[in-house]
Amino acid sequence: MHTQNQALLDALNACIAACEHCATACLQEDDVKMMARCISLDRDCADICALTARYVARGSEHAAHLLGECAEICKACGDECAQHTHMQHCQECAEACRRCEAACRQGLQAA
Amino acid sequence: MHTQNQALLDALNACIAACEHCATACLQEDDVKMMARCISLDRDCADICALTARYVARGSEHAAHLLGECAEICKACGDECAQHTHMQHCQECAEACRRCEAACRQGLQAA
Amino acid sequence: MHTQNQALLDALNACIAACEHCATACLQEDDVKMMARCISLDRDCADICALTARYVARGSEHAAHLLGECAEICKACGDECAQHTHMQHCQECAEACRRCEAACRQGLQAA
Amino acid sequence: MHTQNQALLDALNACIAACEHCATACLQEDDVKMMARCISLDRDCADICALTARYVARGSEHAAHLLGECAEICKACGDECAQHTHMQHCQECAEACRRCEAACRQGLQAA
Repeated sequence: MHTQNQALLDALNACIAACEHCATACLQEDDVKMMARCISLDRDCADICALTARYVARGSEHAAHLLGECAEICKACGDECAQHTHMQHCQECAEACRRCEAACRQGLQAA
Repeated sequence: MHTQNQALLDALNACIAACEHCATACLQEDDVKMMARCISLDRDCADICALTARYVARGSEHAAHLLGECAEICKACGDECAQHTHMQHCQECAEACRRCEAACRQGLQAA
Repeated sequence: MHTQNQALLDALNACIAACEHCATACLQEDDVKMMARCISLDRDCADICALTARYVARGSEHAAHLLGECAEICKACGDECAQHTHMQHCQECAEACRRCEAACRQGLQAA
Repeated sequence: MHTQNQALLDALNACIAACEHCATACLQEDDVKMMARCISLDRDCADICALTARYVARGSEHAAHLLGECAEICKACGDECAQHTHMQHCQECAEACRRCEAACRQGLQAA
């Protein structure tokens, strides 16, 4: 049963890792101040993806509710990261956020 | 700033502790099968309260979105626990869930 | 940088999903009482794996300390699950726990 | 049963909130770069306190193992925050970390 959600879990877990890595890398940039909003959104995004992954893996009846919120926060984080065009960690994070947002919306339709 | 949210954080943290304690106590009951849904909801409820508390404490722009979901899941968990009238841990958990649900809805109106 | 930890993250994430799924499946068994310790360990194991994954992904200086604890709890959970030889979810969880324990110990040596 | 751990849970929850608030406030400082290590430790500290609180509340057999790690990370975070003498959020966080470290060590002795 839980294997049919594997693609969604993979997208969520990739997004968590990308956000955590992005936040750490942002803190090592010369101009950290410019990255402050990115770091804040990385925190929020990693946290909601982690909770959503737990709900999905356990087959929670509340998983669908979380998927919508998770998609919104992934979008906000991805939009911010996408603006930092010269930073590879932000570009990678933006891509992971977009894939996760899409996976959440797909999961929502299937629910 | 974060002190003005202290009552909300207290309600969330009390609910986490009550749900964790209730799940453990349910697993020690003679008829665990009867408690299965209670344990499942305890897990979901503790997890969303924990995330919501983090968002509230950090002043996240997404805190308000979580408060609504959190209130819903607290209500579901509290309703289930309230049915187990002979078990003190369930009654305590039902009370903590109701207080947390109310605090979340109040926090939502203030947001 | 975070890609070199990908195998470890994969093992941790697979263990989280297996534990969450196992706990839910245990709660649906006829004899839930027999599964009570399994469910308890599933909760602990999923939680420490989730924290360890976050530390590893962010390159935390404290990741190494967590890896040892995580390996211990994976071992405890895997040992318990392995005893339930007739339940596929427990056997799958035992396997995920063992792989995760090994990955944590390997990560510990590399640290 | 779980009420006897209330002082420990209160210290853990206060530390989570102080770390989350401190990280957000650090990100709003003019010189964010100077706060980078503080923000990193705030993340680690809030996360381990959150896990430890869950283990304590559920009466996990692994709670004692976590208390030692949690105390170490609280100490590291508190030491860093204490150095930022002109920032109230850091001073408050340092105090919360020290109280939590002490509570964890006390809990460890009682275990």
